[in-house]
Amino acid sequence: MQRKRKLGRGVAVVGAGMSKFGMFRDKDSKDLFAEAFREMLESVDKGFDPNDIDALYLGNFTNDFFIHQAHWGPIISDLIGLAPKPATRTEGACASSALAFREGVFAIASGFYDIVLVGGVEEMSKRTTEEVAEGLALAEVPYEARVGFTFPGVFGALATAYFKKYGANREHLMNVTIKSHSNAPLNPKAQFPFSIKDMMNMKVEGAKKKGKPVPSWDDEKGFLRDPGANPVVAWPMHLYDCCPISDGGACMLLVGEEIAKNFSDDPLYIVGIGQGSGKGLHAAADLTTMEATKNAADEAYGMSGLKPEDIQFSEVHDCFSIAELIHIEDLGFFKPGQGYKAVEEGLTRRDGPMPINTSGGLKCKGHPVGATGIGQLFEVWKQLRGEAGERQVPKKDLRIGAAHNLGGTGGTCTFTILERR
Amino acid sequence: MQRKRKLGRGVAVVGAGMSKFGMFRDKDSKDLFAEAFREMLESVDKGFDPNDIDALYLGNFTNDFFIHQAHWGPIISDLIGLAPKPATRTEGACASSALAFREGVFAIASGFYDIVLVGGVEEMSKRTTEEVAEGLALAEVPYEARVGFTFPGVFGALATAYFKKYGANREHLMNVTIKSHSNAPLNPKAQFPFSIKDMMNMKVEGAKKKGKPVPSWDDEKGFLRDPGANPVVAWPMHLYDCCPISDGGACMLLVGEEIAKNFSDDPLYIVGIGQGSGKGLHAAADLTTMEATKNAADEAYGMSGLKPEDIQFSEVHDCFSIAELIHIEDLGFFKPGQGYKAVEEGLTRRDGPMPINTSGGLKCKGHPVGATGIGQLFEVWKQLRGEAGERQVPKKDLRIGAAHNLGGTGGTCTFTILERR
Repeated sequence: MQRKRKLGRGVAVVGAGMSKFGMFRDKDSKDLFAEAFREMLESVDKGFDPNDIDALYLGNFTNDFFIHQAHWGPIISDLIGLAPKPATRTEGACASSALAFREGVFAIASGFYDIVLVGGVEEMSKRTTEEVAEGLALAEVPYEARVGFTFPGVFGALATAYFKKYGANREHLMNVTIKSHSNAPLNPKAQFPFSIKDMMNMKVEGAKKKGKPVPSWDDEKGFLRDPGANPVVAWPMHLYDCCPISDGGACMLLVGEEIAKNFSDDPLYIVGIGQGSGKGLHAAADLTTMEATKNAADEAYGMSGLKPEDIQFSEVHDCFSIAELIHIEDLGFFKPGQGYKAVEEGLTRRDGPMPINTSGGLKCKGHPVGATGIGQLFEVWKQLRGEAGERQVPKKDLRIGAAHNLGGTGGTCTFTILERR
Repeated sequence: MQRKRKLGRGVAVVGAGMSKFGMFRDKDSKDLFAEAFREMLESVDKGFDPNDIDALYLGNFTNDFFIHQAHWGPIISDLIGLAPKPATRTEGACASSALAFREGVFAIASGFYDIVLVGGVEEMSKRTTEEVAEGLALAEVPYEARVGFTFPGVFGALATAYFKKYGANREHLMNVTIKSHSNAPLNPKAQFPFSIKDMMNMKVEGAKKKGKPVPSWDDEKGFLRDPGANPVVAWPMHLYDCCPISDGGACMLLVGEEIAKNFSDDPLYIVGIGQGSGKGLHAAADLTTMEATKNAADEAYGMSGLKPEDIQFSEVHDCFSIAELIHIEDLGFFKPGQGYKAVEEGLTRRDGPMPINTSGGLKCKGHPVGATGIGQLFEVWKQLRGEAGERQVPKKDLRIGAAHNLGGTGGTCTFTILERR
């Protein structure tokens, strides 16, 4: 455990907004951010003048490469009327906006600013699958991409190592997916707001319409075992182990703790912010754990004085089903090698003792990479404020929630703990 | 003037390093950063253990696009043995590493970290000129690039506006270049450590060797007027009005003010950090000023309590000669429309009352875009500590120096003031 790090000034979240996630080829990054920004404005209980925002931090990963436009700080600053005030882009691959969140926290905690907007945006769906694969490979450490590892390939290797070490198998990955899809229908902003049974029914209806033989499955696992419905991507990663390509935007309004009640009746307080970096697979002694996540967890738990068992629910970076299993162990929610058993026993279900990815996770909610980190924190915001509707975690006295965001194949991880007081 | 912003905890610079700038097709970003890091380690007067570094902020702009590798935080973190501690990339086009510097300041001022490495790196020379032009256009606001504006085109338009409003002409741009080239021979790390007369002699020697007619010029301006020696790039920008394509790296070690003397006998204190964003040419009421620079200056002067006349020398972002004229006015060193006269009168020479770009500036020192912001602060470090050798500013009691960094065509600006106590 690292030494305890503290902020000299507390920081609170007083507003949050998120666009619907999905594939929107008729929307660009500005449209998506504006959608999130508008909702954020409405979410500030006591209202505020957006002209009072002091600065912007914006996470984005792929826009340089996919749409040939970098330098998004000033573009979004102009969009929301912030210019000439400062705007800074952070990039940590799929953790880009969790980094923006953290820099916003530091900027306020330093005393320099009082009101900071943090956000993220990404538009990915205008590219072909091949172009997206090429672009995402920019986030891998060079030794991975150059030997031909794509993202599914890397996580396939992690899954194989996990299987070998702990005796898990493909069925255990399916449990993660089924659990995520059980939450998704309750999240209207999800890219795939469907249960696995919904997906089965869609397949059946599709076959009927086309006059093809109607497939039949006994149960969800039958569907997920079917090579036609759930083909291999990179063994043992199948289609339903992988998150989709998505567009989306998200943002949050941060303020100094002592002024939070001027903005909100029910602010959330940032009690832990952790981050870590990782070297990549070539230097990993053990493929079933990520040192960047462990460092992030150490920093966040150390700052908060909390232990894993104090976290009442968490969003966790499930770019692939295996990632969720590895992370819930690295974050200390379950012991090493016990994560897959916990999922099998239903412990991570919405009504279980440790709900994971009540939003549907990246798998179902979608993964517009630069928007994901704050998109995860948006779910924590909704849950802690009791605004998660049908997917509300059924715990009394919900006070502490967290979000874990991963960039690349383990290069950057963040872990953020929010508290309702 | 904005309200005065303050940091809750002071921050000091206790070490700095910079690679030689130039075109190094046999070196990659890691080689360049390592060169800067090694010099930084040696520059810490009392020595320190690099294992004590808490976090890294790294500026980089073009590596995504030019060498198909993003997510540089963890790569450099791995290189310097920092992993699993955090590493965050900032991107603000050519101001990327000035943003890294600022985030490092906030991270320490927040109380969360004590010792933070900030740096920047860029490798550009492996691409063709056409590819570089395409890549740099990613930093413009979309409305500029889409109507065909390249960077020299944008700054040519600014120069034309400046000429029209203030009666300056191309000769006044030449004065900026001649002044920068008078400093360059004294900077061993400069990409072009040559005076204009050196360049003239090289042309003569080259012609002699090839048996071609030997050119003759009366003086430096004669050389700069010659279309063969100094061709038009985008009127009125000629070759010698434009900075080169460069590779390089730079870094600085920041620590909490109260522990600075544990590291250095002669630390520098960060007394002003300002930043601003701009909308771009399409929304500018006046092309002879940049609102982002003015906001950055307001923030930095407001924090420091200093006025422009208190700054004893400054590095200023001279990606093009006209940029230096516009910035020295926006920063308040000279009144609007007086910058070109000040340069003509020699006021910005190394031995003048307001030395600008003693390093040779981007024009001569080179402009590896992501390394430039901290490269400028490296010059301030050397000057304030009296370590600038032959190019040392000949002022008694040199105490306060500054650096101004521009990203894109005005999208991001920073202004940083350092003090020796």
